[in-house]
Amino acid sequence: MGIIVQKFGGTSVGSVERIQHVANRVIQEKEAGNEVVVVVSAMGKSTDQLVDLASQLTSKPSKREMDMLLTTGEQITISLLSMALIEKGYDAISFTGWQAGIETESTHGNARITNINPQKMNKELEKGKVVVVAGFQGVAVEGQITTLGRGGSDTTAVALAAALKADKCDIYTDVTGVYTTDPRFVKEARKLESISYDEMLELANLGAGVLHPRAVEFAKNYNIPLEVRSSMENERGTIIEEEAEMEQNLIVRGIAFEDQVTRVSVLGLPNELTTLSTIFSTLAKNGLNVDIIIQNTTTDNKTSISFSVKTGDLEDTIRVLEQYKEELGYERVESESELAKVSIVGSGMVSNPGVAAEMFDVLAKQGIEVKMVSTSEIKVSTVISQAHMVSAVDTLHNAFELSKPAATV
Amino acid sequence: MGIIVQKFGGTSVGSVERIQHVANRVIQEKEAGNEVVVVVSAMGKSTDQLVDLASQLTSKPSKREMDMLLTTGEQITISLLSMALIEKGYDAISFTGWQAGIETESTHGNARITNINPQKMNKELEKGKVVVVAGFQGVAVEGQITTLGRGGSDTTAVALAAALKADKCDIYTDVTGVYTTDPRFVKEARKLESISYDEMLELANLGAGVLHPRAVEFAKNYNIPLEVRSSMENERGTIIEEEAEMEQNLIVRGIAFEDQVTRVSVLGLPNELTTLSTIFSTLAKNGLNVDIIIQNTTTDNKTSISFSVKTGDLEDTIRVLEQYKEELGYERVESESELAKVSIVGSGMVSNPGVAAEMFDVLAKQGIEVKMVSTSEIKVSTVISQAHMVSAVDTLHNAFELSKPAATV
Repeated sequence: MGIIVQKFGGTSVGSVERIQHVANRVIQEKEAGNEVVVVVSAMGKSTDQLVDLASQLTSKPSKREMDMLLTTGEQITISLLSMALIEKGYDAISFTGWQAGIETESTHGNARITNINPQKMNKELEKGKVVVVAGFQGVAVEGQITTLGRGGSDTTAVALAAALKADKCDIYTDVTGVYTTDPRFVKEARKLESISYDEMLELANLGAGVLHPRAVEFAKNYNIPLEVRSSMENERGTIIEEEAEMEQNLIVRGIAFEDQVTRVSVLGLPNELTTLSTIFSTLAKNGLNVDIIIQNTTTDNKTSISFSVKTGDLEDTIRVLEQYKEELGYERVESESELAKVSIVGSGMVSNPGVAAEMFDVLAKQGIEVKMVSTSEIKVSTVISQAHMVSAVDTLHNAFELSKPAATV
Repeated sequence: MGIIVQKFGGTSVGSVERIQHVANRVIQEKEAGNEVVVVVSAMGKSTDQLVDLASQLTSKPSKREMDMLLTTGEQITISLLSMALIEKGYDAISFTGWQAGIETESTHGNARITNINPQKMNKELEKGKVVVVAGFQGVAVEGQITTLGRGGSDTTAVALAAALKADKCDIYTDVTGVYTTDPRFVKEARKLESISYDEMLELANLGAGVLHPRAVEFAKNYNIPLEVRSSMENERGTIIEEEAEMEQNLIVRGIAFEDQVTRVSVLGLPNELTTLSTIFSTLAKNGLNVDIIIQNTTTDNKTSISFSVKTGDLEDTIRVLEQYKEELGYERVESESELAKVSIVGSGMVSNPGVAAEMFDVLAKQGIEVKMVSTSEIKVSTVISQAHMVSAVDTLHNAFELSKPAATV
């Protein structure tokens, strides 16, 4: 008994039949005695169709007008879902972002939520209505319609849960939960019962992709328990909360990985205090995102820096480095592609110092060379050959016993 | 030089190419030194597609949610047209109904505009921007999205013209103007240079169909000159204004007609004061619209009433009359279908009392029986056999010399 926020993504509302199905999911929670707020995305491919219309008119659409255009997608879904609920005998009311009181920055395309006025939603909840809110959108102080950017509907759901002091925020998606690793590659991958916000953040950033990092951060800041669960199958998902249940032997909670990684080395740089900031601010200004960074100081007054980028960004990276060669003062650039990043994640690592060593040992025994390493308190990332990625994940999954059924201590 | 409001309907913005074309039309006015506000409808068949989606979910959709759904159509058009204008080098900004300050009653599906706050639009016009506004929609005092019902975008355009104190409101449509009669039936039909609001109202109500009567009334009340013109061809249309230029010999300005008319006669009614109100309020309560009404008092205490309805409404009309037979106390009902209504319209009639007589004379000479007559100060309507409709219109068009080129007095 309490307020539950449910979020359904574009695939879950991709057709009239699926909207009916979502309505049934909403009714289940309502029948269980909860007050329900539902956040929905645009139907299936409708956003792509709108983007296509715009691209026929201009190659560089105004961001304000793109927000105006794209926000119609969720507006269609909220009205249809409300109709479906009403047809099934449940009182429902739809709200666009501005009607729901979702205030954002005045930027377009990627605005952050600044405030939520939940009075209107609360009023309708008190009347017993299901409140259906358009995800991904808000309104700036001057009254223009804004969008929240990638993962926006997840963020809307979590932000509403915080503003409404909801008991729980359920993120319905096309997977049944968060897994120890990607089940498409490792058949022993197991669904986790629970995971902490920080672990989820590390997994999300590393490409697990079921939940947008911004939404997880928001949930962490406001301590909103999230559940990632399937919109198709009626089974428990994975709970994301501050203190995830400790599962026996689960020092490592999950293994994330991504391919298409390239290592770039800049050799013969002047060994000065500003070298690092100069090189990475230059890349950042040119929109290039760098992941792992390693600096090797050499004995003379020269140094070298290696970093990893997405392989798709390699060409631009080389171009920018060459453009600023004189300013940066390096001797030469080398690169190695067809690499992958494999990371183990788990908050248990903080109190178990040998975990990184164990990871390296496992990889070494498999004859896998580790080309770069990066560590945080709850994560160890390694860059290895792309050809070894899946076997490395498989071996690590076994070594850290991730496929064992969870046993609560 | 001044403010011009342009309105483009669904066909005019039905594709990306047509939106480009509309953008060029807007630019023409802008280049002529005007400040331009554009009102657009939803693209072509998009409203039908949205209605179809809703009908797959429910046979009786919530009116509030239908408004939420359908208003996305114009929102898509305003963003695309703004993008097209910006791409062509003209600064433009789109506004939904609520953003444009269009306040309406709190009813859904057919709300009337109660007030317009033009400040935001004026601010953007002062910056030199083209302001693109979604037609057909507004916002009620509690913040819910409303629609204006049929002809809503015409009404939006005229209301904005009034609020902005525009010099002119151009209604772009798929015809080149208002004609003396329907050119699809009478090849001598001639485009009128100008027509008064009242004449246009009579023509609009009678099925000329190029402009919604509500919009004409609004224009009349605020004395906004309208021009009905083609969105495809670049020629002058028809001006609608308080004092239409008197064209020589044009006592009759136009001939309107519609087929599918049925005459219903209720015979043997008690001759009481409340008979008329009882019978027509009963029909109205059942959603049946009656056009011409004729009461024949007979010598004893019985009376009979004849009225015309759309042939499609005949079955329901008979059903309602039978249902209330006891209450109404009539003896029997007769009906005659396959009739048509032919009307001559012109404000010159007020001071030319012989016009109705001339009409009857023309019809009589053609051997056409007049079955019902209704007159107003600027209109004479006759109900005749449907088989004679086109020849009657043709003959009257000649008799009143409507095909003669206009000559200003």
